[in-house]
Amino acid sequence: MTADEDAVLAANEAFYAAFNAKDFPVMDALWARESHVACIHPGWNVLSGREAVMESWRGILLNDEQPRIVAGGASAHVVGETAYVVCRELVAGSPLAATNLFVREAGEWRIARHHSSPVAMVGG
Amino acid sequence: MTADEDAVLAANEAFYAAFNAKDFPVMDALWARESHVACIHPGWNVLSGREAVMESWRGILLNDEQPRIVAGGASAHVVGETAYVVCRELVAGSPLAATNLFVREAGEWRIARHHSSPVAMVGG
Repeated sequence: MTADEDAVLAANEAFYAAFNAKDFPVMDALWARESHVACIHPGWNVLSGREAVMESWRGILLNDEQPRIVAGGASAHVVGETAYVVCRELVAGSPLAATNLFVREAGEWRIARHHSSPVAMVGG
Repeated sequence: MTADEDAVLAANEAFYAAFNAKDFPVMDALWARESHVACIHPGWNVLSGREAVMESWRGILLNDEQPRIVAGGASAHVVGETAYVVCRELVAGSPLAATNLFVREAGEWRIARHHSSPVAMVGG
């Protein structure tokens, strides 16, 4: 694994840690500021642009009923200043899969896209 | 819109045209050869690597029962040699949203990731 892949996977872990810590400022800092961002939460419609995306995260992280998320099986692929991660998610026993895209901004890997959706099973 | 964005949106349209034409050789040519590819079909698990991804497309395109797909509302964002598209899909009346990632290989925009999943509604 390259140093870039390591750094991307660390950013991916930080994303899920912020989710579980319900830490909006950290979540906000993890999202890209220069690149266009978009987000598709499971079953939601496309959220496009930083304002809509961060508003959604504020709602999710402020929701006391929001269960924790368990993420695993992440793999990262770096292409220049962007990187693609796929990983599994488990929320309240339901298996999901996520595509997370990172862009390098100011030397940091920041999230530009998060697309999460239900999958048939955890393994496979 | 830049020439790169135009070219990415054309590649995105070619992807859906190949789907509807059930043209496996064209679909195969549209997917990246140098970059790692992965695909998450609606409700399926993560398919990682070219062999698994193309095997899934062969099955989908050879399936006589596979309905046509209507894609729209695509927007493209180019970051160097990669590009991100989000768009809507409509399959047999069911609304979905897709994240499609393209990488530039040999001067052509080729698909490296396709993640499609159900969304709550068509508009919004």
